Order: sequence, then structure tokens, then C-alpha cells
Amino acid sequence: MDSSKNGTPESEARAKGKAAAGAVPPPVAAARVGRGGWKKGVAVFDFLLRLLATGAALAAATTMGTTDQTLPFFTQFFQFQASYDDLPVFTFFVIANAGASAYLVLSLPFSIVCIVRPQAIGPRLLLLVFDTIFVALTTAAASSAAAIVYLAHNGNANANWLAICQQFNHFCQQVSGAVVASFVAALTFIFLVDLSTICLKRN
Amino acid sequence: MDSSKNGTPESEARAKGKAAAGAVPPPVAAARVGRGGWKKGVAVFDFLLRLLATGAALAAATTMGTTDQTLPFFTQFFQFQASYDDLPVFTFFVIANAGASAYLVLSLPFSIVCIVRPQAIGPRLLLLVFDTIFVALTTAAASSAAAIVYLAHNGNANANWLAICQQFNHFCQQVSGAVVASFVAALTFIFLVDLSTICLKRN
Repeated sequence: MDSSKNGTPESEARAKGKAAAGAVPPPVAAARVGRGGWKKGVAVFDFLLRLLATGAALAAATTMGTTDQTLPFFTQFFQFQASYDDLPVFTFFVIANAGASAYLVLSLPFSIVCIVRPQAIGPRLLLLVFDTIFVALTTAAASSAAAIVYLAHNGNANANWLAICQQFNHFCQQVSGAVVASFVAALTFIFLVDLSTICLKRN
Repeated sequence: MDSSKNGTPESEARAKGKAAAGAVPPPVAAARVGRGGWKKGVAVFDFLLRLLATGAALAAATTMGTTDQTLPFFTQFFQFQASYDDLPVFTFFVIANAGASAYLVLSLPFSIVCIVRPQAIGPRLLLLVFDTIFVALTTAAASSAAAIVYLAHNGNANANWLAICQQFNHFCQQVSGAVVASFVAALTFIFLVDLSTICLKRN
């Protein structure tokens, strides 16, 4: 790099040529100097978003998993009780959100690798592919549960399905909260995919 | 580039340096030579997948939108009839899938730009961000409709919701077909996101 002190364009080009012939290829070297800090910031934000999504998915799974309401009156034969496993959709909801939080916890080390080495493509690509799958999974869980919650709140006269939330008020509130938490997790996943995309753009 | 005929490492490095100082930066030039054909193939595949997804989303919207079954018996006061707009979830389904097919048709010119210029980052990034949003939208439509279709087929004894598919057999079949088509569209969107990711990887 000493020859660049001459200052002529010709010698500068020669100096660049020597750098290019070295161990580090030019695009990587340029990115390391110019965009390393910016990418590290995005990687830290990615890590924080993953913590938020873990919290949201875990909250959704536990809130839904612990719903259980027994009405204070009962007939001679049975007591009125509502729990999440009365409806298969809610069971799927718990499994999907528990799976999403497990994946998010497992993805944290990869996210840390992306902070330490912002130029690494492998872990970033791995996270992006799995994040896209979990966008679909959490959205599916949240929206199918939302369809049933809507039915529980409003009923449907055409299909002759009655609203059950008048009786199971506490149950419905808890389930609605879980659905909102799951939607937060799904939106965070969409945001994570977009963040990873921006990071991959210039490698 | 004539100096590279000398064969010494020093002169080769100088030649590279001259290329680096020219109008075309080295990473773009290298990618244009080495990976243009590969990327063009992926872009063509992306275009074909978009056509498939357009067909699936359009089929889902039209199949759901034309469901209408009138039972051959009626009481004194009203006739039994089932149509997609009896359930708000199915209305959302039609809107979401129609929106997805409209977006897919609009995205075709951008996909063609990606075929013509495989190195262009702008249109690819735009497609990726919107594709991710439509992964969520089509999955939400398909899974919420699937939750209701499951209920229509099986009913739920705990919530005292009866199955309606014994009566409205044709209606249920048509709705189930629409849900399957919408899931095909959602899966194609996930695949499109992953394809775009691979294309963005090395630019």
C-alpha cells in the first residue's frame, strides 16, 4: 500500500490491483469496510425482534393452553366446562405457537453468529428459509383460531351455530388474547424475513 | 488486458487493477460473466411459478365465489339455501384470493424484468417484500376457511355446533376445493420467496 502515497491515478490503480490479488477478494473487503457497521446494527435488531417474537409466541401458546372455564351451575348429568382442547383448531394453535417459540429459541445462536460475523451468508439464508415457513405456520394458527373465536363471539344464523361467549365469557377473552399474541408473532416473523432480505442484498 | 499475456503474477495483478479502476466494478462484472445464465433460469422458473399461483388463486376465488346451493325442499316460510356470503370468513377468502391473483398479474412485468436483467436488485427486492406479505394473506385466508370447513364437515359437540355438510353436500365439496386451491397458492408464494432469496444471495 506504500505506492499509493505517490498520488497518481496509475499508481493507485496498481495498488488496488495488489490488494485484489491478495487473500481477501475485493467485494468482501469493500463490504467489510463500508457496510460492516450498518449490517451489525441490523443483526442486533434481528436478535431483539427474535426475543420479542419468542415472548409473543410463548404467551400465545401458554394463554391458549391454560384456558379452562367451568360454569358455576350444572345439571344432574354434567357440568358445563370449556377448555382449549374442546376444539381441534385450538389444539393446532397451541402446537404451532409452541413450535414457533422452540424454533425461535433455537434460532438465537444463529442470530448471534450473524451479529459476530455480519457478512456470513449461510446462517442468514438458513434463518430466512425457516422464518418464511414460520410466517405461514403462525399465520395459519392465528387466523384459523380467529375464525373460530369470531364464530364463538357472534355465532352464525345461516349455519344455525349459536354464540357461546355469553356463557363462557372468561374463556372467550383468554382465547382472543392468545390470538392477538399469535398475530404479533406472525407480523414479527414477516418483519424478520424483510430484515434478512435487506441484509442479504449486498454481500 | 494485453499485459496479462506476460504471465507473471505482478503483471496480472496490474491488469486486474486496471479493470478495477474502469467503469464496471469487479463484483458486478464477475457476476455478469459467471452467474448470468444460472440466474436467468431461476427467473424463468419464477415467472412460471407466478403463472401457476395466479391460476390457483383465481380458481380459489371463483370456486368460492360461485358456491350456491339451494336444497330441493322448503318449508312454508323459507327455502334452505347456502352461499359463500353466509359466512364472513368465506367473504374474506374471496377478497384475499382475488387480491392475490390481481397482485400476481401485476407482478408478471416485474418478473419479466428479472428475466431480461437477472442482476437487477430493485424489482427482485420489491417482489420479495410483497410476496412475503401475500404468503401471510393467502395462508390466513386458506386456514381460516379450512377451520370453518372442518366445522361444517364435523361439527363440534362441545360448542353444540352441528355439521351442516349432510344437508349442503355440494356446497361443502366446492368450498373444500377452493381451500385446497388457496393452499396451493400459499405454498407457491413460499417457494417464490425462497427463489428470490437465492437470486439475491450473490449480487
